[in-house]
Amino acid sequence: MQKGFTIWFTGLSGAGKTTLSGLLHHQLQAKGVTNVEVLDGDIVRTHLSKGLGFSKEDRDTNIMRIGWVAHLLAKNRVPNLVSAISPYRVAREEVRAMIEKTVGHGAFVEVFVDCPVEVCEKRDVKGLYAKARKGEIKHFTGIDDPYEPPHRPEVHVKTDEVTPEQGVNMIMAHLKAKGLIG
Amino acid sequence: MQKGFTIWFTGLSGAGKTTLSGLLHHQLQAKGVTNVEVLDGDIVRTHLSKGLGFSKEDRDTNIMRIGWVAHLLAKNRVPNLVSAISPYRVAREEVRAMIEKTVGHGAFVEVFVDCPVEVCEKRDVKGLYAKARKGEIKHFTGIDDPYEPPHRPEVHVKTDEVTPEQGVNMIMAHLKAKGLIG
Repeated sequence: MQKGFTIWFTGLSGAGKTTLSGLLHHQLQAKGVTNVEVLDGDIVRTHLSKGLGFSKEDRDTNIMRIGWVAHLLAKNRVPNLVSAISPYRVAREEVRAMIEKTVGHGAFVEVFVDCPVEVCEKRDVKGLYAKARKGEIKHFTGIDDPYEPPHRPEVHVKTDEVTPEQGVNMIMAHLKAKGLIG
Repeated sequence: MQKGFTIWFTGLSGAGKTTLSGLLHHQLQAKGVTNVEVLDGDIVRTHLSKGLGFSKEDRDTNIMRIGWVAHLLAKNRVPNLVSAISPYRVAREEVRAMIEKTVGHGAFVEVFVDCPVEVCEKRDVKGLYAKARKGEIKHFTGIDDPYEPPHRPEVHVKTDEVTPEQGVNMIMAHLKAKGLIG
């Protein structure tokens, strides 16, 4: 019977969360884990958090909502992959606590998608850093809003040093070691 | 393999949605359908819709959010039971369309929990009708806010005429007839 779990990708905009999530999704499907739900930050904001802004309070509310949905899926044995900047440590820890309490220890897998802001800014896939520098976007994480890195993430992927394939291999190795996949 | 579906209980406050949902949950478990998620309107409001009020727009946003979560569960083969007043027909139809599109025709089961407002008001389990009559609660469905009954619900339970057990039997019969449970 497939176990439920949540892979929580946290990191700056442009660090590579969605890329890793997409590749991991494929790898899991290749391993026969077919009922995986992908919850991407932008899509989730549309469905769950329209009207919320980017203040600390609104960001935390957004994260708790995504976390609540992730825990519903995980407790019903649906592995899910969440990509969300989720800059505040306490909010991530609250989601971890909720999922570990409901689903079990080890069911929350925090993946720190780590990339220096200078590199993210150079990539600037969505053109958001340029807008943030011009002041067209306020409260942009890494520019004029804080990012609190995890102290002890289950997996730490430095995306300026390893390829996405290598990063996903690290996550798959963790899932196997913890018995979350066969 | 268990099919995913959403049972959507709609009706006035005090009509008996939560009672039917709880009893159905037990019946499904007794039939071996163990991975059922119960989404009760009040709990869901806490986790998904804090800050939303009771204007038509906010109510519709609330319903679309619950519907989005229900569709995530149903498409991953997690049967789910939603209790929400959901007074507006168009919002319910949008949830139906989303679930039927993603999960399949028949996966959205609308249960009209039908009870005259006078009877609900007499029951007044939560004391809300009294407050609404005194004007302490505004926009209370059935008092100073509209309820649009479904035109063709899959199951129509008149809770002032049948027992909760009889109502749940009607729902179980529908689920069997449609092949949603064995």
